[in-house]
Amino acid sequence: MSETRKSRVLCDVDFDRDGRQTGFLRLFHSSHVSAYGFLPIPIVVLRNGEGPTALFVSGNHGDEYEGQLALCGLAQSLDPERIRGRVIILPTANYPAALAGNRVSPVDNLNLNRIFPGDPDGSVTEQIAYFISSELIPRADLVCDLHSGGSSLLYTPCSLTNHVADPDLFRRQIAALRAFGAPLGYVQGRAQGQGGNLTLGGVAERRGIVTLGTELGGAGAVSAEGLAIARRGVRNLLVHLGILPETEREPAEETRIYGLGGQDHFVYAPEGGVFEPLAEPGETVRAGQPAARIHTPETPWAPPAEAVFARDGFVLCKRQPGRTLRGDCLYVLGGAFTPSG
Amino acid sequence: MSETRKSRVLCDVDFDRDGRQTGFLRLFHSSHVSAYGFLPIPIVVLRNGEGPTALFVSGNHGDEYEGQLALCGLAQSLDPERIRGRVIILPTANYPAALAGNRVSPVDNLNLNRIFPGDPDGSVTEQIAYFISSELIPRADLVCDLHSGGSSLLYTPCSLTNHVADPDLFRRQIAALRAFGAPLGYVQGRAQGQGGNLTLGGVAERRGIVTLGTELGGAGAVSAEGLAIARRGVRNLLVHLGILPETEREPAEETRIYGLGGQDHFVYAPEGGVFEPLAEPGETVRAGQPAARIHTPETPWAPPAEAVFARDGFVLCKRQPGRTLRGDCLYVLGGAFTPSG
Amino acid sequence: MSETRKSRVLCDVDFDRDGRQTGFLRLFHSSHVSAYGFLPIPIVVLRNGEGPTALFVSGNHGDEYEGQLALCGLAQSLDPERIRGRVIILPTANYPAALAGNRVSPVDNLNLNRIFPGDPDGSVTEQIAYFISSELIPRADLVCDLHSGGSSLLYTPCSLTNHVADPDLFRRQIAALRAFGAPLGYVQGRAQGQGGNLTLGGVAERRGIVTLGTELGGAGAVSAEGLAIARRGVRNLLVHLGILPETEREPAEETRIYGLGGQDHFVYAPEGGVFEPLAEPGETVRAGQPAARIHTPETPWAPPAEAVFARDGFVLCKRQPGRTLRGDCLYVLGGAFTPSG
Amino acid sequence: MSETRKSRVLCDVDFDRDGRQTGFLRLFHSSHVSAYGFLPIPIVVLRNGEGPTALFVSGNHGDEYEGQLALCGLAQSLDPERIRGRVIILPTANYPAALAGNRVSPVDNLNLNRIFPGDPDGSVTEQIAYFISSELIPRADLVCDLHSGGSSLLYTPCSLTNHVADPDLFRRQIAALRAFGAPLGYVQGRAQGQGGNLTLGGVAERRGIVTLGTELGGAGAVSAEGLAIARRGVRNLLVHLGILPETEREPAEETRIYGLGGQDHFVYAPEGGVFEPLAEPGETVRAGQPAARIHTPETPWAPPAEAVFARDGFVLCKRQPGRTLRGDCLYVLGGAFTPSG
Amino acid sequence: MSETRKSRVLCDVDFDRDGRQTGFLRLFHSSHVSAYGFLPIPIVVLRNGEGPTALFVSGNHGDEYEGQLALCGLAQSLDPERIRGRVIILPTANYPAALAGNRVSPVDNLNLNRIFPGDPDGSVTEQIAYFISSELIPRADLVCDLHSGGSSLLYTPCSLTNHVADPDLFRRQIAALRAFGAPLGYVQGRAQGQGGNLTLGGVAERRGIVTLGTELGGAGAVSAEGLAIARRGVRNLLVHLGILPETEREPAEETRIYGLGGQDHFVYAPEGGVFEPLAEPGETVRAGQPAARIHTPETPWAPPAEAVFARDGFVLCKRQPGRTLRGDCLYVLGGAFTPSG
Amino acid sequence: MSETRKSRVLCDVDFDRDGRQTGFLRLFHSSHVSAYGFLPIPIVVLRNGEGPTALFVSGNHGDEYEGQLALCGLAQSLDPERIRGRVIILPTANYPAALAGNRVSPVDNLNLNRIFPGDPDGSVTEQIAYFISSELIPRADLVCDLHSGGSSLLYTPCSLTNHVADPDLFRRQIAALRAFGAPLGYVQGRAQGQGGNLTLGGVAERRGIVTLGTELGGAGAVSAEGLAIARRGVRNLLVHLGILPETEREPAEETRIYGLGGQDHFVYAPEGGVFEPLAEPGETVRAGQPAARIHTPETPWAPPAEAVFARDGFVLCKRQPGRTLRGDCLYVLGGAFTPSG
Repeated sequence: MSETRKSRVLCDVDFDRDGRQTGFLRLFHSSHVSAYGFLPIPIVVLRNGEGPTALFVSGNHGDEYEGQLALCGLAQSLDPERIRGRVIILPTANYPAALAGNRVSPVDNLNLNRIFPGDPDGSVTEQIAYFISSELIPRADLVCDLHSGGSSLLYTPCSLTNHVADPDLFRRQIAALRAFGAPLGYVQGRAQGQGGNLTLGGVAERRGIVTLGTELGGAGAVSAEGLAIARRGVRNLLVHLGILPETEREPAEETRIYGLGGQDHFVYAPEGGVFEPLAEPGETVRAGQPAARIHTPETPWAPPAEAVFARDGFVLCKRQPGRTLRGDCLYVLGGAFTPSG
Repeated sequence: MSETRKSRVLCDVDFDRDGRQTGFLRLFHSSHVSAYGFLPIPIVVLRNGEGPTALFVSGNHGDEYEGQLALCGLAQSLDPERIRGRVIILPTANYPAALAGNRVSPVDNLNLNRIFPGDPDGSVTEQIAYFISSELIPRADLVCDLHSGGSSLLYTPCSLTNHVADPDLFRRQIAALRAFGAPLGYVQGRAQGQGGNLTLGGVAERRGIVTLGTELGGAGAVSAEGLAIARRGVRNLLVHLGILPETEREPAEETRIYGLGGQDHFVYAPEGGVFEPLAEPGETVRAGQPAARIHTPETPWAPPAEAVFARDGFVLCKRQPGRTLRGDCLYVLGGAFTPSG
Repeated sequence: MSETRKSRVLCDVDFDRDGRQTGFLRLFHSSHVSAYGFLPIPIVVLRNGEGPTALFVSGNHGDEYEGQLALCGLAQSLDPERIRGRVIILPTANYPAALAGNRVSPVDNLNLNRIFPGDPDGSVTEQIAYFISSELIPRADLVCDLHSGGSSLLYTPCSLTNHVADPDLFRRQIAALRAFGAPLGYVQGRAQGQGGNLTLGGVAERRGIVTLGTELGGAGAVSAEGLAIARRGVRNLLVHLGILPETEREPAEETRIYGLGGQDHFVYAPEGGVFEPLAEPGETVRAGQPAARIHTPETPWAPPAEAVFARDGFVLCKRQPGRTLRGDCLYVLGGAFTPSG
Repeated sequence: MSETRKSRVLCDVDFDRDGRQTGFLRLFHSSHVSAYGFLPIPIVVLRNGEGPTALFVSGNHGDEYEGQLALCGLAQSLDPERIRGRVIILPTANYPAALAGNRVSPVDNLNLNRIFPGDPDGSVTEQIAYFISSELIPRADLVCDLHSGGSSLLYTPCSLTNHVADPDLFRRQIAALRAFGAPLGYVQGRAQGQGGNLTLGGVAERRGIVTLGTELGGAGAVSAEGLAIARRGVRNLLVHLGILPETEREPAEETRIYGLGGQDHFVYAPEGGVFEPLAEPGETVRAGQPAARIHTPETPWAPPAEAVFARDGFVLCKRQPGRTLRGDCLYVLGGAFTPSG
Repeated sequence: MSETRKSRVLCDVDFDRDGRQTGFLRLFHSSHVSAYGFLPIPIVVLRNGEGPTALFVSGNHGDEYEGQLALCGLAQSLDPERIRGRVIILPTANYPAALAGNRVSPVDNLNLNRIFPGDPDGSVTEQIAYFISSELIPRADLVCDLHSGGSSLLYTPCSLTNHVADPDLFRRQIAALRAFGAPLGYVQGRAQGQGGNLTLGGVAERRGIVTLGTELGGAGAVSAEGLAIARRGVRNLLVHLGILPETEREPAEETRIYGLGGQDHFVYAPEGGVFEPLAEPGETVRAGQPAARIHTPETPWAPPAEAVFARDGFVLCKRQPGRTLRGDCLYVLGGAFTPSG
Repeated sequence: MSETRKSRVLCDVDFDRDGRQTGFLRLFHSSHVSAYGFLPIPIVVLRNGEGPTALFVSGNHGDEYEGQLALCGLAQSLDPERIRGRVIILPTANYPAALAGNRVSPVDNLNLNRIFPGDPDGSVTEQIAYFISSELIPRADLVCDLHSGGSSLLYTPCSLTNHVADPDLFRRQIAALRAFGAPLGYVQGRAQGQGGNLTLGGVAERRGIVTLGTELGGAGAVSAEGLAIARRGVRNLLVHLGILPETEREPAEETRIYGLGGQDHFVYAPEGGVFEPLAEPGETVRAGQPAARIHTPETPWAPPAEAVFARDGFVLCKRQPGRTLRGDCLYVLGGAFTPSG
């Protein structure tokens, strides 16, 4: 699982050239309707001499939009003469999914954020993962992967990072989280690992790079509030890294940080039916408090099933679609943040 | 377009029997996997002697849930001994769509609310429309068809009715709208007609029956606020009709009523891309005020297209999904309500 | 609903020419991959001078095979010199469905036997129905439409006809039923009408033509027993009509005839799950006897739902697939046959 | 089948205003992802005072491109000050099909050119047909519907018209055909009628309007030769009508005209397999000459089936895709043109 | 291909706790409509102190039902106080396939029984295989995987096991086969190996665990006879293992055992068409005897192709669907059982 | 990535037997509708004593037909008594794709020519690749893989080979290319490598086997010219190898050879829309010359985008479909051939 093989993806931009460059990653994909064509994944690089490198990614899931729009704005507004160092912007990482407004790729049905570090000889999404793992992440001093709740979840906007074993790296992650300036943030415990496959952030952390994420809204829509947080946050991160001068810092409130640990932070649907939420993102709840009713309008005379919260916590997100299957996640709760993990 | 032919749908319940009856409409549908089977559309009838008949319908669009849940509750809680007259409850009118959580039927891809009065010899959805038109609506003194914004729209919860030519009927529609007790309501102008095909409400109004609708939330989810309004509203309508005693009326604020007229009440996407909303349901806006930006993250260096509001108004709903095509509706504005239409 | 317009389907054979002719009905269907092509529906005509005309149809539902194979054999083995009159053979009436082994057409998703008399300007299946209604049925003295249970039902092999109002026609239908020589037969009551749309047999009966059907097996397979009955039956019908000489009659047992009437002849699934049959085709059952259990292996600890027979009867068919939805037909019972209908 | 009902389609342009107007036909289509949206079908109108009206349509089939590109060019290059009268340009008549590059609509799977005059209350394609039939064609003095062979056929570029009963109209159609200036043309005999449903041209001819068509190439591609013919032809038609001055006429060779009559002009695949063409568009062939071999590489040891030409003629088009089903059209032959039909 | 990595699947039950436990395996699957949800695969564990462990699996193929129903019954009826040791019941191993009534998973299109031992980081079906391989099989002293013929095959009910190299293990497998008490059984020869990928049973045998299978009916239906054999067999196996007392043994006839070896035991379709079976499951046939005719009703004048049995044998199963492609398996024959393999 | 494991595919023919043998590769594929069936991939072997072996493959992409037809002809016409050595013919390598007329397999959506050397335990296409890699290629002295442009490209007919590091092998490849006798040929530079996955030819070259390919036409059709070249070429290769005598050599013109190197040989669509080609296969073009316009008929007033050729060259192929996405390949140019690579 090392990234020593060469990605087949061609890249229009030169990461070592000064100025603003825009172009495409050319991911060749031979299909019935295009035997020799490529998928054009847009990339923007801004560089001004030596200095740190920030990598901003969005569209890892194609139906999460606030990050995509914030990075469009950054790509258009950032003046390469005003920065020091380098900013790499990849707004639609899973390009086919982003075009389709889908969580997963319509080409190979894969969830990009579950298959890192990818495979240079694999399917389209595996090749995207591998290019990011082997060509973008190793160039970065900070990786910021902007997510939202997507089509099935609605988050109260927040930033997030993971507990990592290296205390210095963890301290720097928390500092970056605070620099981003979201009103809320959470820290995922070590138990959240994904086995052999990693997330984008997991690849970065494995290399000891400061890594940050967000959950900026969701429900398949664009949240004006989440978008404002994202626009401010990406610029404040550049200030934090010294890529933009201090004068560019936008004021932000203190980030309230929650911890996210084991399965008791999650509420799942006990039956299939229509989900009636009994709490909303941003609320504080208690163990035993009713969380949801699951109704079955196809037998309207049958009483609904009920779910309760298994612990105290802060509602980070809830499920969006009414129609629900047994096992769907209805809520995620943040708990107390204990910096020692 | 008269409803004189006999529906082929069989009905488990007897509309003229006292007490609570539950059962199914049996819509026979011969398919590869079920040659002689029926689609079981649940129906509940409560009756106690002579008196008015209220018909409540939801699931006309399968991804609109607040009405479905309110009618499940009504079917379970209403005591036939406490009513006078009759209540007919059809919680999942487009049953295959409701099971699938889809606006339109997965069986024949039809939008039930665009094909009334239906066809007794037609496809599944046309047969549903015809049964409602020929067997349920003619029995009713009041028809309430509970909608929400569905998967593509988010409404601030409201009730609605249509301008009808008969001033007495219109006066009674407005009275019913107020009795329902939603905080907001709107009245659709006569220009909203749909040509030869009608909505469910259009069939009822053509017969001179008091007809009411709602838009209770949307975004494919269940709105707690919209659900509370619906639960109160359906009971208050029963009080208004005299089916439930006055003592059952739940207090509600005055309904603020808007008018809805021509195309300038609607904002459409001028290009395809990702929709950034610049106003929210419940806001008041001015003509010329920016309404939306449409971004193209696949070319993140390209500036967004913009749309403006064409008139002053109150934002009744906005589009939910980020990914948008040219021509998609982004906003609907309510204007001043003029009782003369 | 008369058949006075001209079918657009071209026909390779001349119905008034003596000898054996084979060819295709050419149903033109303009598609993305074939702008000017036709669907080639095979037809065989054998004629020898004046005399009665028998029309044999199979493949009305594409997944019902015994009739298709019996008619292949008839088309190959019948010597036009040995007959008197005419035999028209249409083995794959719903040709696209027959090629696909589907009940309904994969082209327009229509069930041919629910849309008679069809439409000369309609979709593919409607044009097939119209050609049969306007060009084949009017030429016939006897129409035999060979069905089986298809993919979702398993029949004990039998022949069938309908109660018709004209007593002479009905008497001749019963005589033909007996001539066919299946061990079992049933007569559908008048209550089985289909509204505005007819079956193939309904069109023939409306014209006063003797009409016969079969249910020869099912479960999507070829039944050796049902096939033998069909092969004998179609020849015996030709003898019965005088098209083949008496010497060709194959001995057959007396046909035991059942009646088929209202909804109490049918057992439907009360819930969705896996259907465990408690009776088999060919059994005699009593009212109140357990008919089926519906299990839910996805919650294996939940007890099964049960269904009972609502009346005494003879099990004509049962549902084949294990996975079942609420409303699927599990059994059809034959009752006593009363010739007066 | 009259067009007296009002189309529901809204139209951005005013047909009676001078100057160049561009905009969309707004065909409202309520779907799961866009409840209130419209399909934006582009339309361009150029007008300068009184005078004749030419209606140019392309994209009737979405995979026929030369007409679409020629009309784009016309819409961009035509100076409204230089014309007299009116030019209406509808480049993507079946807009959803044109966007998809499909012959038929991906929305309702209908072939626009088989369902005229359409239905104002029907599905998307039926509404398009009705708008053209009721709003565009009645305004025109000449209708030119630009086709190509599409995905399944390859034509040698030609223009075409139909035999019509009115000799004066027919004379004017032939004059327009010659004015268009394609090197080849053909005239379809009266036998080509389509029953109750019409083509776009059929609606125009029924109203006595001069109507012209083309087949400009095909194979799903853009033919440079066909495109040049189309670009010249549409301008020369405007000169012919007096909308553009004579000085704008581009020189063109004389049009060689063929006749197209009964089924012997068509060669169909006698079997399924891979089609090897033995003649090419533009060739002259003889009755009995081999036309095609149909190979079966899945049994490569089996000899191919063969098809021959049934009459002498000029090869107007051949089938493009190698994989072929029995009944697919392989060739269309032009024969001698006899002006008397 | 060892199973040393940790499965990501969470398990609700504790395999070491006494009593009856029911719950779900939680297989997390992040999809567009459920970002954090799990597939709830039901599991039941009954334990009473030390003793042997029996693992019963069904739903390995989702359209094979007798095992699923027998295990539902076992899960509901077995009294943990009456057993000694442990019984693990997994009724719907390929849960998405079982819900859909499909052989293969609708999620990733994989056939569970062809991909053992699976992959903890793989797709949904690969993760199921891995959990069974790494967590369930290692705990078992006997593994019984209950199959039927599924949608495409109809078996005469039988049990089965494989020749294994270890004579002691093989002797114990035959003993278990006899204890199960099916009237028929067969033993697959060593030549039936599947290369690198294994079946569920192959993983168990590789670990030296006694492994048993069944083929209890098929044709996509529930066989009452096969279900009775399964219900008796699973209890008799528990008696055989000493988990249930001898008093619970239900009487069963002696199992007649066949051997199953090379390709001459199989009959395949020589052409595509409609399969007419000339022998039935349970018959004894001779080499050279006609096995099947393949008809082509789309050209009803063409004589059928024929297939013959290549060897003497006992018909274990036949193909169910009429429509057949070249290469489909029509019959499997059992031959003489030679215990030495 | 060695081919030492045993393929599971069974083979009807014996490669070491003299004479003509025809049969199938039996690739077992267990599906919902055929649990034990195989895909029958036809193979023909002709052998006459010792001598070289030629392997001819077509249908590697299912929509490329000239090779398939040429190999059908070869299989039918070649007299085993007239040859010396062995000829192996695999006309439909990707059998499911060839039956469907698709570039990629409809079974697993894989492009056979991107996944060599395949996997004996993989999906259907991976198993095909592995059989060819492990059983066919190692037996060959020359491998000829016959391609065409497929559905998305149109080639001027040509042969091709690759630069290989071994100068002797390369010299023999060029000699074979010339022996094939196509009017045009090209040599792909070393930069065209495909990473870990290989083409069929790549596997052969890695083993030091002389390897040849073709591009014989395309556009999803059969080119009469390309077919004639293929028919002559495969026989001339047999003469070249000494398998057929010199007297069988058919005269052919000298092959003009081009080189094919880096990305400047390719022109890609800069935008999505409809592709208007400005050059044709067989033309010579200059750097800077306009190559294409991309039109958007959905906004017909918008001017087209343009693409230019980046270098001088000979147009080997162009894109066929009009509808085009950004990144689709529009042209491939041949440049000067420099034998040293």
